[in-house]
Amino acid sequence: MADSNSDSKVAVRMFRRLVSGKAAQHQWCVAVGHRESKVSNAVSPMLKTAKGTRDYDPVAMALRQRALKQVIDVFERHGAVTIDTPVFERKELLRGMYGDDAKLIYDLQDQGGELLALRYDLTVPFARYLAMSNIGHIKRYQIGKVYRRDNPQIGRGRYREFLQCDFDIAGTYEPMLPDAECLKVLVDILDKLAVGDFTVMLNHRKLLDGIFGASGVPADKFRTIGSSVDKLDKLPWEGVRDEMIEQKGLDEETVDRIRTYVTLTGGVELIEQLEEDSQLKHFEDAIEGLRDMRLLLKYCELLGVQDRITFNLSLARGLDYYTGVIFEAVLRATDENSVGSLAGGGRYDNLVGTFHRKGQQIPCVGVSIGFERIFSLLESKASRSGDQRKVRIAETQVYVASAHKGLLLKRLEILNQLWAAGIKAEHSYKRDPKLLAQLRYCEEQCIPYALILGDAELGRGVLKLRSVSDRQEEELKLDSFVNEVLDRLRKGGAIRET
Amino acid sequence: MADSNSDSKVAVRMFRRLVSGKAAQHQWCVAVGHRESKVSNAVSPMLKTAKGTRDYDPVAMALRQRALKQVIDVFERHGAVTIDTPVFERKELLRGMYGDDAKLIYDLQDQGGELLALRYDLTVPFARYLAMSNIGHIKRYQIGKVYRRDNPQIGRGRYREFLQCDFDIAGTYEPMLPDAECLKVLVDILDKLAVGDFTVMLNHRKLLDGIFGASGVPADKFRTIGSSVDKLDKLPWEGVRDEMIEQKGLDEETVDRIRTYVTLTGGVELIEQLEEDSQLKHFEDAIEGLRDMRLLLKYCELLGVQDRITFNLSLARGLDYYTGVIFEAVLRATDENSVGSLAGGGRYDNLVGTFHRKGQQIPCVGVSIGFERIFSLLESKASRSGDQRKVRIAETQVYVASAHKGLLLKRLEILNQLWAAGIKAEHSYKRDPKLLAQLRYCEEQCIPYALILGDAELGRGVLKLRSVSDRQEEELKLDSFVNEVLDRLRKGGAIRET
Repeated sequence: MADSNSDSKVAVRMFRRLVSGKAAQHQWCVAVGHRESKVSNAVSPMLKTAKGTRDYDPVAMALRQRALKQVIDVFERHGAVTIDTPVFERKELLRGMYGDDAKLIYDLQDQGGELLALRYDLTVPFARYLAMSNIGHIKRYQIGKVYRRDNPQIGRGRYREFLQCDFDIAGTYEPMLPDAECLKVLVDILDKLAVGDFTVMLNHRKLLDGIFGASGVPADKFRTIGSSVDKLDKLPWEGVRDEMIEQKGLDEETVDRIRTYVTLTGGVELIEQLEEDSQLKHFEDAIEGLRDMRLLLKYCELLGVQDRITFNLSLARGLDYYTGVIFEAVLRATDENSVGSLAGGGRYDNLVGTFHRKGQQIPCVGVSIGFERIFSLLESKASRSGDQRKVRIAETQVYVASAHKGLLLKRLEILNQLWAAGIKAEHSYKRDPKLLAQLRYCEEQCIPYALILGDAELGRGVLKLRSVSDRQEEELKLDSFVNEVLDRLRKGGAIRET
Repeated sequence: MADSNSDSKVAVRMFRRLVSGKAAQHQWCVAVGHRESKVSNAVSPMLKTAKGTRDYDPVAMALRQRALKQVIDVFERHGAVTIDTPVFERKELLRGMYGDDAKLIYDLQDQGGELLALRYDLTVPFARYLAMSNIGHIKRYQIGKVYRRDNPQIGRGRYREFLQCDFDIAGTYEPMLPDAECLKVLVDILDKLAVGDFTVMLNHRKLLDGIFGASGVPADKFRTIGSSVDKLDKLPWEGVRDEMIEQKGLDEETVDRIRTYVTLTGGVELIEQLEEDSQLKHFEDAIEGLRDMRLLLKYCELLGVQDRITFNLSLARGLDYYTGVIFEAVLRATDENSVGSLAGGGRYDNLVGTFHRKGQQIPCVGVSIGFERIFSLLESKASRSGDQRKVRIAETQVYVASAHKGLLLKRLEILNQLWAAGIKAEHSYKRDPKLLAQLRYCEEQCIPYALILGDAELGRGVLKLRSVSDRQEEELKLDSFVNEVLDRLRKGGAIRET
């Protein structure tokens, strides 16, 4: 929880002042910015969330829900349906899935019963679901929190509890067609969320295997050498080289041959170069991988995303279950960001078969959006522009106000009629609130209309409707005000016809 | 997982046949009904979910999301904002909150760090959030899963992982005004979901204390005697009587005096009767409780929900933290249902102070909707009428079809233009699907339009647009088809203006 730059401190103070302020009653529309999940001057040891987790207050939630809606819109635009699975699984299910990172799995205490663990991703539960329900093909998305006991880095959106948004296509289909659609979905989501300048790195497990084979790596070391190569985005070549020689027992010549391949990046021209490579030609895996990549790039071109994709031979991805295309979206580094990978995915054709009672294979490909990192970008962006900008959190359309004392019961009556018509309406929970305070609340909350009750008007069978933004007032009849209000909300665009 | 009546078995078979069928590609639009979370003929031990949990397939999810939207609509109609908190809390936070039921808390394994437990409800994390963020007033809702290691009864919607929908009002306000609004929210939600004939039982902790005092119960036994009384909905009087005498050490006369009160139910007339009660008059708690109840019933009348509420002096509610009004919504028993309590809530004025570093109290009242029980009612209702009814799961608007071989790349081009315009579109992942199979898929999936590509039409610069329901076809020009499709979707109501 080391993330306490001055920007976020200002936002926290601003936010606190607002919610505890005397001026208004519920102040959920203005402050945008980081809030830490630990009160720094807290005395009670209870006053914090578990390590690596945080609360999301109404301001953060409004921002999250808006972003999530955009993600789901893209998923649904591609015809995906959704499922949900439990937050914990039987521990044995997760065994052997996550390589060295298995130590990050949260186990539940054995309280006499099954051994359970919190899910580490949404992919393994999805594969379990497919096998269990005997489903042969599906295009599904799933939004859910996953859990990793990793070292949290709050400022970079790296939490122990974090939301993933997964989109997967299961089924036996024309090669690379679902894979290209996953890349399209990924690019469209990152574009729509306007996270900044990103690139999708692309590679293929079979091509990697071919490269390792051609370089002289023994087959049983393909995965572990892949892990070393994958570190090239964080370590210089020398570090990775030392690891392969000293820890993993490769000889220098093999490592040098690996280097000639894994430092390559490019587009179609790189595929052509590799297709001509005299060594790779002898490896069926490499030939298959290259054939896939060529096809994939063609589909990506038709879908208009080829410019966003870079073929990167050092990308290996940590998870054990990938079998084909792998990819990862990263933000191009700037001073303002350091969130690293935004999303990743790939093809895993053998995972479902691991669970299936007849060993039946269901080929799958999918993409997982790392929502917290994206949200951390959006939140700090909102925070930077936050002082000026107003974000509306509650959706109240009409505030029912008393012009003077003694109108509480009448307010309830009026409110009830508005609610019955589906209008979002509020009033003060005080018996006799001051009119000025009520109107100020409406302005602060950006509530479009106030209905003002007063004995004089009620005596004449009318109510005053005030348009909050321009302070114009008109009289509505008591026996028709609900329809009049509905009409104005429709015209103002505040109500959508359903 | 004993819930396998023949109805649900039929639905499971139907569902399985559909999703593994050869006829169509993704069959997510027709079967509605229970699916069990255990495959009965499974060999692999991995092929089940943890005890008391289940998966939600796309059919169930569509039903759930529709119902959840209705719940959220009511919350937002009352101007509530939303928050989110982690799924686990520090174990010490939950200590002393849940009486005898504390044994049902899921602990996480101590993996070297904090002692954590899965949240048992959303109320305690909310109170922790208020104290930690120093928030004095808020009207918030929260939708989240909670965890109890209870004995699952799947057929009755009783799971170990289940969704709660909470609505709470925190702040120092005019007495009973927020309490009445919680009841209004509760009644409106249950009405909207059409769960069946329900009633809201209402009581007051202070009145109960007054009754116990007037009956001669020692003050330190109020809570435990309350627990006994609370069992009157399941046990006959004799059982509860025995418990109070034999296990809790009351004498017979005290118990008999308790009986004269706690068997009472009614409306305003009952309050009048109790106000006249010569014993209760001496107990300040009872007088306060009755004053609150009278006021609450008046507000409920104005909000039009008084008919749905029964004052029931045996309602005590298990949780330790309630301090005022308590309530519980139950379905009137029929042959078809046995789900028991649908929702519950009450006032808890001292909970936030327990966590607050200055012991500052924030009065709160709230209602918690037990979503799984309601969903289990809705799901079995849908299942009963399911064979006839079609439920549309995916939202695809346009299916791009090939009239003959060799059009895959052209399909991608057309699809990409539709997606770019925000149209929900799909095609076959096969290279050369049969036209008839593609059109049949559109009909089964209730997709409104098919765009059919053929060389002859493409040569003339047109595409065929087929309206799937009436099989009418027309030609659209290649340079303007996107706008034409948008236009038809708008007119057909399939696109909402935003």
